[in-house]
Amino acid sequence: MASQMKSFLFLLILLVVSKTVISARKPSKSQSKPCKNFVLYYHDIMFGVDDVQNATSAAVTNPPGLGNFKFGKLVIFDDPVTIDKNYQSEPVARAQGFYFYDMKNDYNAWFSYTLVFNSTQHKGTLNIMGADLMMEKTRDLSVVGGTGDFFMSRGIVTFETDTFEGAKYFRVKMDIKLYDCY
Amino acid sequence: MASQMKSFLFLLILLVVSKTVISARKPSKSQSKPCKNFVLYYHDIMFGVDDVQNATSAAVTNPPGLGNFKFGKLVIFDDPVTIDKNYQSEPVARAQGFYFYDMKNDYNAWFSYTLVFNSTQHKGTLNIMGADLMMEKTRDLSVVGGTGDFFMSRGIVTFETDTFEGAKYFRVKMDIKLYDCY
Amino acid sequence: MASQMKSFLFLLILLVVSKTVISARKPSKSQSKPCKNFVLYYHDIMFGVDDVQNATSAAVTNPPGLGNFKFGKLVIFDDPVTIDKNYQSEPVARAQGFYFYDMKNDYNAWFSYTLVFNSTQHKGTLNIMGADLMMEKTRDLSVVGGTGDFFMSRGIVTFETDTFEGAKYFRVKMDIKLYDCY
Repeated sequence: MASQMKSFLFLLILLVVSKTVISARKPSKSQSKPCKNFVLYYHDIMFGVDDVQNATSAAVTNPPGLGNFKFGKLVIFDDPVTIDKNYQSEPVARAQGFYFYDMKNDYNAWFSYTLVFNSTQHKGTLNIMGADLMMEKTRDLSVVGGTGDFFMSRGIVTFETDTFEGAKYFRVKMDIKLYDCY
Repeated sequence: MASQMKSFLFLLILLVVSKTVISARKPSKSQSKPCKNFVLYYHDIMFGVDDVQNATSAAVTNPPGLGNFKFGKLVIFDDPVTIDKNYQSEPVARAQGFYFYDMKNDYNAWFSYTLVFNSTQHKGTLNIMGADLMMEKTRDLSVVGGTGDFFMSRGIVTFETDTFEGAKYFRVKMDIKLYDCY
Repeated sequence: MASQMKSFLFLLILLVVSKTVISARKPSKSQSKPCKNFVLYYHDIMFGVDDVQNATSAAVTNPPGLGNFKFGKLVIFDDPVTIDKNYQSEPVARAQGFYFYDMKNDYNAWFSYTLVFNSTQHKGTLNIMGADLMMEKTRDLSVVGGTGDFFMSRGIVTFETDTFEGAKYFRVKMDIKLYDCY
């Protein structure tokens, strides 16, 4: 009996000690799967002069002349976000924020914005910022916070330019991966 | 004796196992209370032309004409933050940052700013960003970081417009709830 | 034997309980060391009119006249970041983002930007925002997110002005301390 109990105790100690070891090692989030993952399309429909009806974004500064790639052009937007590539589909969210061009030798941008969800599926916001390195096929921005259904979320948004139609319209595929969910 | 010890061991195992189960489930922060919670008032006193003395914010862009709700007007501010509704009370913090209007069919704004505390009570900063959905009674922005007394903090700021006096002054009640404190 | 086992059990219970107490108390990150820590130099080389060759930043708004300290001047940059003080050293990163001046009685600024690393040592980005309280010798901004090698990072960047040569050039020492690494 006593020896049986001894081995029992040994196993118990092993369990306690192994838990200690496990919790001392930080979980490797980079290898883990996101807790939420979805793909959305962002449609930027630039304001020219007389197209108030369709436009959802507008430049508010003029490039000061540093290079030929719109360095310093700042655009404010309230753009539709959809689950397919058609910008006229029912939006599942609005993207509200701004971007600007910031490179003198090539096109390159920087974004800071909020995804505002207000559908039966999702209510709440995701706050996002980061460099949009346009010469890369894909580039990662940070989800730095969230509210409502996305309370306190953090993660990564991977941008991929889907189409670029001159100065009037472009579409970006946003692959949203949240690693902190509550 | 042996049977007494057996039940003892059983309880011990239960304790170990229950802890394993608990720590495997992420704590539901949405249901938990904030670790810090306080209400502050933000006073925006807009610069016109000759009121340098009182003004604490100023527009730096002109709306480009997309709708009639100031779309594209960007305002930079160093606004006083107080614990009561009187903008002439001793500020407990400054709000330094910017907002802009971003909707063509209604008033809507977007904020990114730092609360700078420098009093005997608090030293440090909170960094905040998010959509200010002005048509909602209350709206949530994200606290995405903090320094000093608010080292590494995260949380939510709930905005509620307290008064809006034309283009010269508005006051927002900020209910600050931190869920990550160190 | 039974008494020996009793004291054994007692120790085991102590171990389990002490772990409970430890895990219930949040680790004090403010007292802990950063998981990553490095110093970089940020070089801002302002665009005048005819110096496109050297310039890496440019103002996009004009101060509206609130005081004499450039309140409302917004600068967009794609600035070199080096490990020493020489702005002509091979950059280890680019700092892409913006700052603006926001005080009417003194010089004070606010930054939001991305450090873009693309070397053999580091690939990825760090996203940073916060107040640059220029009257302080050092001031802390928040690292609110990261991608690539800096996946999901958070931390603090301590700014210290290293040199300030009029309106054409300034250099800031950035002491980057990450407290969340994955």
